[in-house]
Amino acid sequence: MVEPANTVGIPVNPTPLLTDVLDIVIPTIRNLDFLEMWRPFLQPYHLIIVQDGDPSKKIHVPEGYDYELYNRNDINRILGPKASCISFKDSACRCFGYMVSKKKYIFTIDDDCFVAKDPSGKAVNALEQHIKNLLSPSSPFFFNTLYDPYREGADFVRGYPFSLREGVSTAVSHGLWLNIPDYDAPTQLVKPKERNTRYVDAVMTIPKGTLFPMCGMNLAFDRDLIGPAMYFGLMGDGQPIGRYDDMWAGWCIKVICDHLGLGVKTGLPYIYHSKASNPFVNLKKEYKGIFWQEEIIPFFQNAKLSKEATTVQQCYIELSKMVKEKLSSLDPYFDKLADAMVTWIEAWDELNPPAGAAANGNA
Amino acid sequence: MVEPANTVGIPVNPTPLLTDVLDIVIPTIRNLDFLEMWRPFLQPYHLIIVQDGDPSKKIHVPEGYDYELYNRNDINRILGPKASCISFKDSACRCFGYMVSKKKYIFTIDDDCFVAKDPSGKAVNALEQHIKNLLSPSSPFFFNTLYDPYREGADFVRGYPFSLREGVSTAVSHGLWLNIPDYDAPTQLVKPKERNTRYVDAVMTIPKGTLFPMCGMNLAFDRDLIGPAMYFGLMGDGQPIGRYDDMWAGWCIKVICDHLGLGVKTGLPYIYHSKASNPFVNLKKEYKGIFWQEEIIPFFQNAKLSKEATTVQQCYIELSKMVKEKLSSLDPYFDKLADAMVTWIEAWDELNPPAGAAANGNA
Repeated sequence: MVEPANTVGIPVNPTPLLTDVLDIVIPTIRNLDFLEMWRPFLQPYHLIIVQDGDPSKKIHVPEGYDYELYNRNDINRILGPKASCISFKDSACRCFGYMVSKKKYIFTIDDDCFVAKDPSGKAVNALEQHIKNLLSPSSPFFFNTLYDPYREGADFVRGYPFSLREGVSTAVSHGLWLNIPDYDAPTQLVKPKERNTRYVDAVMTIPKGTLFPMCGMNLAFDRDLIGPAMYFGLMGDGQPIGRYDDMWAGWCIKVICDHLGLGVKTGLPYIYHSKASNPFVNLKKEYKGIFWQEEIIPFFQNAKLSKEATTVQQCYIELSKMVKEKLSSLDPYFDKLADAMVTWIEAWDELNPPAGAAANGNA
Repeated sequence: MVEPANTVGIPVNPTPLLTDVLDIVIPTIRNLDFLEMWRPFLQPYHLIIVQDGDPSKKIHVPEGYDYELYNRNDINRILGPKASCISFKDSACRCFGYMVSKKKYIFTIDDDCFVAKDPSGKAVNALEQHIKNLLSPSSPFFFNTLYDPYREGADFVRGYPFSLREGVSTAVSHGLWLNIPDYDAPTQLVKPKERNTRYVDAVMTIPKGTLFPMCGMNLAFDRDLIGPAMYFGLMGDGQPIGRYDDMWAGWCIKVICDHLGLGVKTGLPYIYHSKASNPFVNLKKEYKGIFWQEEIIPFFQNAKLSKEATTVQQCYIELSKMVKEKLSSLDPYFDKLADAMVTWIEAWDELNPPAGAAANGNA
């Protein structure tokens, strides 16, 4: 007999947990005590921990968490010579976690990020908000003045073309930070006491054609849609630059999302960022980036991918050729980086053979 | 003797009132009792009231306000045959007020807009926030994830090019609405009970190359920078369309601001919008716009002004030619609108002779 369902007690529009299709990637050099505070929200998920620095050091993970951990020896063993594309002594190494994951979604968070409070004092479930962002469309082709039109209580405003209201798939969800803002070294030096206390209750799509500074501290994305472009570059040990890993990835993914018609959202969720990194150390890592970015950003603003590039991999390889051609004159580093971009894609495809290929890679 | 100043009691970074250089433009068909509530914030300013509809009707303005009022007879007398560019029986007539003003700044507000409360319950001084927006730069060339970097407690985040941190002059400040959101007729019909209760504490620059739906309900701008482009088109009586006056102006000003390197901000301040207009009446006014905008918006997205267009007037005349050439095939209305755009500029220049020309227009 057909009967109506009993919906008593079922919350309206509950956000799916996605525990089976989402991995949390954490780069770290220390014990992960910060996960204690996250337990109510993150314990149901599988963690991929990428241990940076000394592989002999033992990282403590709070009890009850399900995880796999990779140190440098593991990375070298798994990738062989291709391990050269994974940075060492820099949190850029986190992108190895994106590569070994087999899940559709990734949430990556730094180990100095704690649970934020919203203005009502309620603990913010950052991952739940990222999932909301990723599961609802983006609107990159026209600006909606009431922010994310897919949020409850909001919609497209008068004058928004109806043909664009279906939106596009969201590939990236970029979250923000209360307390310590993500400033560069010069700004840290000039405003050592500035804290971000403004909780802006908004999610928005970054319009097509607009680049943004993507921070890797509190970030989620759809691996199937954009994973191969989430390469955090060559940073840290042996490289002339640091702290531009997430920026590099952000420029690349935005150009590729724009080309492929995918969306990038920013805004909620906030995390509480507890600890400013040392501005003097940061300045040393950043200073080349600070003048390089004056040329890199116009390069990305003008980067046009070909119609033939229809997969993320194809887009990324095209981008690597442009980097070699146009940025190598800036510094030989970019020649090396362009090569590493190719190596990264090769390694990605090796660990993630296309559907239909045998699981062992022998298609 | 040189002495240090006494700064006791001087507020930090007070927002200038600009009473001598700002006019408030209000289009109306009824008594302006809504100004009672605005008295603490708006009474120091000069009002330009544009009376729509029957000129014989007497509009009551609350005592103590300084104002000038123009009805249709005044508009016809002042502009002569050029009065044809000013809409009748539509709030688009407000742009006549922009033209007759002699001030640098305009704030325009609808007569069903009341003072909003911020989340702490404090009355929002909308005009003060507009002035803040207009007096601080915009950042249209790169997205800042912490929103307006010029606000207190905020700055440019890591990865924001230093060469772009000076920003550009802000030409337009677009404010938002609590309570009744600015929805089109179909959305009003589908969601008659939706109210905007989300106070988003942000101001942001709309990126270069991105169009937005500009609402004329709560809007401020710099007449010197963008005034001649703030034409609200031909709407209402005798026209096939209504409720696209502000949209039209928004598309035009954005293309011209992008061309001239000027900024457009949106977000704060909120007003409390009290009264939804009738969705059935709105549907009748809007329905042509709803399908026309599907072609008009791509037209504006692709509109490229020439290098020779260096003044707002030159840009606007170029745009009028493109409208005639590209949109007339959509409907003969656009041919008429293109002509009205030229008439508007002629009327503007007549009432606002270039500096150096004699005040009576006989240069």
